[in-house]
Amino acid sequence: MFLNKALEYGDLVLLYIDHKRKAIVKLVERGVTGFDKGFVKHDDIVGKSFGEHVYTNRGHRVYLLEPLLMDYATLISRRTQIVYPKDASLIILLANVKPGSRVLEAGVGSGHLTTILASIIGDNGRLYGFDIDKDCLETTRSNLEKLNLHKRVELKLHDIRIDPGLRDLDAVILDIPDPWNALETVLSVLKPSHPLVAFQPTMNQVEKTVIAMRKTGCFVDIHVYETLLRELKVEEGAVRPYTTAISHTGYIVFGRKIKGGV
Amino acid sequence: MFLNKALEYGDLVLLYIDHKRKAIVKLVERGVTGFDKGFVKHDDIVGKSFGEHVYTNRGHRVYLLEPLLMDYATLISRRTQIVYPKDASLIILLANVKPGSRVLEAGVGSGHLTTILASIIGDNGRLYGFDIDKDCLETTRSNLEKLNLHKRVELKLHDIRIDPGLRDLDAVILDIPDPWNALETVLSVLKPSHPLVAFQPTMNQVEKTVIAMRKTGCFVDIHVYETLLRELKVEEGAVRPYTTAISHTGYIVFGRKIKGGV
Amino acid sequence: MFLNKALEYGDLVLLYIDHKRKAIVKLVERGVTGFDKGFVKHDDIVGKSFGEHVYTNRGHRVYLLEPLLMDYATLISRRTQIVYPKDASLIILLANVKPGSRVLEAGVGSGHLTTILASIIGDNGRLYGFDIDKDCLETTRSNLEKLNLHKRVELKLHDIRIDPGLRDLDAVILDIPDPWNALETVLSVLKPSHPLVAFQPTMNQVEKTVIAMRKTGCFVDIHVYETLLRELKVEEGAVRPYTTAISHTGYIVFGRKIKGGV
Amino acid sequence: MFLNKALEYGDLVLLYIDHKRKAIVKLVERGVTGFDKGFVKHDDIVGKSFGEHVYTNRGHRVYLLEPLLMDYATLISRRTQIVYPKDASLIILLANVKPGSRVLEAGVGSGHLTTILASIIGDNGRLYGFDIDKDCLETTRSNLEKLNLHKRVELKLHDIRIDPGLRDLDAVILDIPDPWNALETVLSVLKPSHPLVAFQPTMNQVEKTVIAMRKTGCFVDIHVYETLLRELKVEEGAVRPYTTAISHTGYIVFGRKIKGGV
Repeated sequence: MFLNKALEYGDLVLLYIDHKRKAIVKLVERGVTGFDKGFVKHDDIVGKSFGEHVYTNRGHRVYLLEPLLMDYATLISRRTQIVYPKDASLIILLANVKPGSRVLEAGVGSGHLTTILASIIGDNGRLYGFDIDKDCLETTRSNLEKLNLHKRVELKLHDIRIDPGLRDLDAVILDIPDPWNALETVLSVLKPSHPLVAFQPTMNQVEKTVIAMRKTGCFVDIHVYETLLRELKVEEGAVRPYTTAISHTGYIVFGRKIKGGV
Repeated sequence: MFLNKALEYGDLVLLYIDHKRKAIVKLVERGVTGFDKGFVKHDDIVGKSFGEHVYTNRGHRVYLLEPLLMDYATLISRRTQIVYPKDASLIILLANVKPGSRVLEAGVGSGHLTTILASIIGDNGRLYGFDIDKDCLETTRSNLEKLNLHKRVELKLHDIRIDPGLRDLDAVILDIPDPWNALETVLSVLKPSHPLVAFQPTMNQVEKTVIAMRKTGCFVDIHVYETLLRELKVEEGAVRPYTTAISHTGYIVFGRKIKGGV
Repeated sequence: MFLNKALEYGDLVLLYIDHKRKAIVKLVERGVTGFDKGFVKHDDIVGKSFGEHVYTNRGHRVYLLEPLLMDYATLISRRTQIVYPKDASLIILLANVKPGSRVLEAGVGSGHLTTILASIIGDNGRLYGFDIDKDCLETTRSNLEKLNLHKRVELKLHDIRIDPGLRDLDAVILDIPDPWNALETVLSVLKPSHPLVAFQPTMNQVEKTVIAMRKTGCFVDIHVYETLLRELKVEEGAVRPYTTAISHTGYIVFGRKIKGGV
Repeated sequence: MFLNKALEYGDLVLLYIDHKRKAIVKLVERGVTGFDKGFVKHDDIVGKSFGEHVYTNRGHRVYLLEPLLMDYATLISRRTQIVYPKDASLIILLANVKPGSRVLEAGVGSGHLTTILASIIGDNGRLYGFDIDKDCLETTRSNLEKLNLHKRVELKLHDIRIDPGLRDLDAVILDIPDPWNALETVLSVLKPSHPLVAFQPTMNQVEKTVIAMRKTGCFVDIHVYETLLRELKVEEGAVRPYTTAISHTGYIVFGRKIKGGV
C-alpha cells in the first residue's frame, strides 16, 4: 500500500466516526453507508487517501482508515459469538502461528479468528478451516475473499472428530463444544512437540478437556488461561476503569503433544 | 522442520521437566544442562527428535520440545522487566503486525517482544529496534542471532525522541517511560491511519500519553487497555483459579494516526 | 420478628419475582405494586407471612421476603450513585463498625451505606451523617424513618472540610470528591489509632488523598483497595462467569490515625 | 475505651511496624515481642496510649494500635485457611448479620470469621459455631476469650449434616466441603425468607450446592459471587496496582429460604 494512494472503487475502508460508530465497507459506485449520525457517499471517498476524512450529510466527520486485523470483526455478520481480540491474540501466540505455519482451525464459526490466522500465516502458510455448519463456512469464505486471503485457506465441511487425513501440522486450534472427542484426531494431525489450543466457555468443558488430554498420556505443559480486559477512561485529572466490561468470554486450554505416554 | 528430524548440535531445544523447570538450550558437544532435579547431557539428546524424552541423571523425564514464540522469554537474560505473553500478544494484534510489516519498536529492553515481532513479520518484513541502553541492544542482538532472526531486524542505539529519518512505517510500538516526548517522531515515521501502541506501568504515564496524543489532533480511536490473566487449576471434581497471580504488568495505549487535526 | 408473624399494613416487604424484578414496599390499604409481569394488591399480602408467596394478576409468583440490609439499595430513590454491596461491606469492615460505634459519614449521598451503618451500630451507636446537598439528606432521612433507624443517626447539612466539633469518633467514612481537603477535620474528630476510610472513583483522587495523608504525618498502615465482583452462572454441566459485569466502582483508601508525626 | 486511656497489662494491642510486620499481643509483665527489626518490652508499652509509639531495641518505631475486627486474623494461629477480609465482609452483608442476630456458622475453621461475627451480633445476639474438628474449636474458643467475645458464642463439636435442634435462626453460614449434604439441616434451622451463605473454593462444589438448593424447591434469589481484591501502589506521579495479588480464595453461594416449593 503506497502512502497517499488514492482510494478506488473496490477498496476496503474502515469508516470511523467514534468508538461506537464504525464499519468496514467495500467502496462501490454510487454506494452509500449510513450511520445514526448521517450517511456518506462512496463517490466522495474515492480519490481521498487513508488518514483523511469526509463528512456525513449531517456534518459529522468520518475518518477513512485502513482496516487492521482486529477490525475484521466489525466486518463479520455474526452468525455465532466471535472470538474477542483479547482471546484471539493469546490463542495465536500460544498456537505459535507465524509466516509459513500450517494450522488447523476446527469450528471456524463467524470466521473472525480465521481471517486473523490467514493474515499471519502469509502466502507460504496453509490454514485448514473446518466446521459442521455450512452457513458458517459460506460466510467465512465470503469474508476471506473480500480480504483477498482465501487462497491461503482450505475451508471444508468436516467433523473434526473424524480424521481428515492431514499430517504434521504446526498447530491445532479448537473452538468446538467437545474438544475431548477430537483428541484422537488432534494427535494424528499434529507434529510432535507442537501445540493444541482449545477455547471453551464453561469450566465443565475445561475440566473434561484437560482430564481427557491427561488420559491420552500424549500432552505435556497443559495450562488453562482466562484473559480479562479492562479499559481505562482517561480525562485529565480523572483516570479510572470504565464502569462496565465484558467479564467473561471463555477459557483457553493449551498443551503440547509428545510421543508415547507421560 | 521435518517430522522426526534427528536433533543435531547447534539446534535450539526447549528442555521441559514441568511447569517450573524448563530452559531453551543450544545443543553443544559435551554440553550439560542442569536442573534441581538433575542434569542432562546434550550428547544424549543428539539423534533424538522433538516430542521424545531423555532422563536426568536422577531419573526425571526431560521432554525435548521445539521452542515456541512465547518460550523465547525463558531464553532471555532478563536485564529489564519482560513484556508478558498476555501483553505481547495483544500489542501485536493492536499493532497489526503481519508478514511484510515494517515496524518500529522503541525500548527493546530485554528483547522478548522483539523476537516475537521478528518472527511474525517474516523475511519480507523489517523491524527497527531502538534503545538507549547498549547492553539491552547487545543481549537482544545475541538472542536474535541464536534464533536466526537477526537479518530481519535493524538494532540501533537511538533515542526515539529524535527523528530517526524513517518514513511510512506500518506500526510504532513504544515501551519507554515517556511516550509523550516521542509523539513528534511517531507522527513523522508512521503511515497515515496506522497504529501507535505504547506500553506503560503507571496510570500517570497513561494520562500524560493520552492527553498528549489528543493535543496533537493527529490520533483517533484512542483506547487504553489492561489485560489480566487468570490460570485455572484443574483436578477432577476440583476446578478453580490458582490462588496467586500476576495482578498488574502495565497499560496498553492505542491510537491511529490521522492527517491534520481532529 | 416472630416466625410466621402475619404481615400487617405498615410492614416493609421485599416483593421478589426474579433477579431483575424486586422492590421493597410498605404495605398500605388498597395499595398496589406493579411490575412488568403484572401487579399485586397489598390487601392480598396482609395476613400472609415471610417466605410465602402471592401471585400477580397475570399469574406470576411474587415471594414475600423480609428485606436484608443489602436490599435497602432497591428502596432508595437514586439521587446519586449508590455504594455497591461489594464496596459497602468492605468499607464497614475496614471502618471497624460494630454495635456501639460512633461513626461519621461525610457524603451520605443516596443514603444506601447510611442505612447499613445505622443497622450495624445498634441502639447504642451513633452515626453522624453529613452532606452539602439538602435533597440527599431529605431522601436519606425519609429512608431511615421507613426502616425505623432514624433515632441512631444525626443528619446534618454540613461541609466536612469545616470542623463539626465532634471528638473521639471510632471511624470516619468519606465519600466526597476531595478527601484531601477534609484531613484536618478527620484528625480532629477521630480517636487515635482509629480508621479513616475514603471512597473515590478515580486514581487521581486516590493519589492526592494518599499523598496528603502521608504529609500530615498522622496516618499509618495506609492502603488502597479496589474490589471486583464476578457472578457465576450455574447450569448443570455449564458453570461460567456471567458475560458482562460492573468492572469498576471506586477505590477505597484506608489509614489509621496516630499521634504526632511519622 | 476512653481516649488516652493508659494501656495496662492484659490489654490487647496491635503492634505495627509496617505492612509486613504487625502482631496482636496481650500485654504481660516482663513480656517481650520480637520482630526481625528487633524486640519491644511490654513493660515499656504499659502507661502509653493507643496511637503512640515505642521503639524496638534496634531503633524501629512500633505503633500501638487498637486492634480492628480485621486485625484478628493476625491473632489467629492458622490451623486452616482463613476467610479473607474481602470475603468475610461480603459474607456478613449477604447473611444480614447485625446486632441481635442469631446465626449459625458451620465450619468455624480457624475462627477468623467467628470473631468478626461475634463482634457484630452484639451482646443480644447469639452465634452457634459448629465444627467436626476439636482443635479448631479449641483455638477459636481461646481467641474468643482473649477478645472477651466468648459469652456470645456457643461452640460445639457437631456435624452440621445432623439436625442440631435449633430453630428460627436469622442466617446460616457454611464453610464446609459439602454444603449440599447440609441443606436439610439448613431448612430446619433457618427462618423463612432468611439467607443461607456458603463459601467454597471450587466451581464443582458451587455447581453441586446450587443444583441441590434448586432441587429442594425451598430457595429463591440464588446467586454465586466471587470477590477479587486489587491493591494500588501509590507513589507521587506513579500510581499502579501491585504486581502480584491473591487471585482466588473461593466462591460465595447465596440463597433465601422460602416456604414450600418453587
